[in-house]
Amino acid sequence: MIVVVYAHPYPHVSRACAALVKAVSGMPQLTVRSLYDLYPDFDIDPDAERAALEGARLVVFVHPIYWYSVPALLKHWFDQVLAKGWAYAGGRSLAGKDCLWVATSSGDERDFVPAECQGHPFEAFVPLVERTARFCGMTWLEPFIVPAASRVADADLEAAGLRLRQRLDEWRSAAQDPGSAPNA
Amino acid sequence: MIVVVYAHPYPHVSRACAALVKAVSGMPQLTVRSLYDLYPDFDIDPDAERAALEGARLVVFVHPIYWYSVPALLKHWFDQVLAKGWAYAGGRSLAGKDCLWVATSSGDERDFVPAECQGHPFEAFVPLVERTARFCGMTWLEPFIVPAASRVADADLEAAGLRLRQRLDEWRSAAQDPGSAPNA
Repeated sequence: MIVVVYAHPYPHVSRACAALVKAVSGMPQLTVRSLYDLYPDFDIDPDAERAALEGARLVVFVHPIYWYSVPALLKHWFDQVLAKGWAYAGGRSLAGKDCLWVATSSGDERDFVPAECQGHPFEAFVPLVERTARFCGMTWLEPFIVPAASRVADADLEAAGLRLRQRLDEWRSAAQDPGSAPNA
Repeated sequence: MIVVVYAHPYPHVSRACAALVKAVSGMPQLTVRSLYDLYPDFDIDPDAERAALEGARLVVFVHPIYWYSVPALLKHWFDQVLAKGWAYAGGRSLAGKDCLWVATSSGDERDFVPAECQGHPFEAFVPLVERTARFCGMTWLEPFIVPAASRVADADLEAAGLRLRQRLDEWRSAAQDPGSAPNA
């Protein structure tokens, strides 16, 4: 089971993230949880979120970069769902699951200033998702990043969606065949 | 005028952050905005927040590190208050103001893993406050960090509060005497 935790503050006007989520929606054994649709008032139900993750072998976080980081509701999800005794310190509910980080950068300077990134991978500026996942014992896969998404043509976004779908297909094949190398 | 934007998810059980905020509360020309008290339902009023910042010459962000970053409500504040046309891209409402980042780390591994921090300043792991402030044209002052705050004795927290108060006093003296070096 793959659980996609999707956090776009304006899911119905999203272009890049929406294209990615659309490309993978409907895949078998895959659930999409659009946090801003589920919790427009930020009233996250931690128990429901934990229950949704129980059967997951792969957790996919999909979001645009907002002020160098995750949108606030995804941060609230981390703060509320990843509780002591469940995710760490006595609980290891996410340990051993794979984690794929899918992020789009609008190309707006708030997201990503290329001059400051020289010599650093994109992820160096957004470490909290990786650190959070690893702290919970998850296996961190190679992130899937779509930079400058606001300037990318529709056809290229569609192609990115197909690549993401292929990533998930490959992950599933590897997961079903423990003899092959994981897609990490 | 100094505006303290304070974001502790549980302000009434906070020990370290509360000690710091208490130490500076009541200083003349200083306002504290406790976001989790003002907006327990995350229903931030961006206009009220912008109005509160108008007269500020120094903006102080005070928060505990939560999952390697700011608590969700402070991220929501960034997402909602720092709007295009007001904070950037046509608006420069915060430009030229000083920004002081005050953060406490509980000492919990979720906040800060010393082994991973070797060779890096603490701030390298929490870049979004600095990047956000600088992007809005604010002047970034030397941060005020209280590490391992959950293990610090009450007397040491009180001392930290006095040091913070002194920092603000020194800033005010420098601000009132443009000939002296700013406390940056």
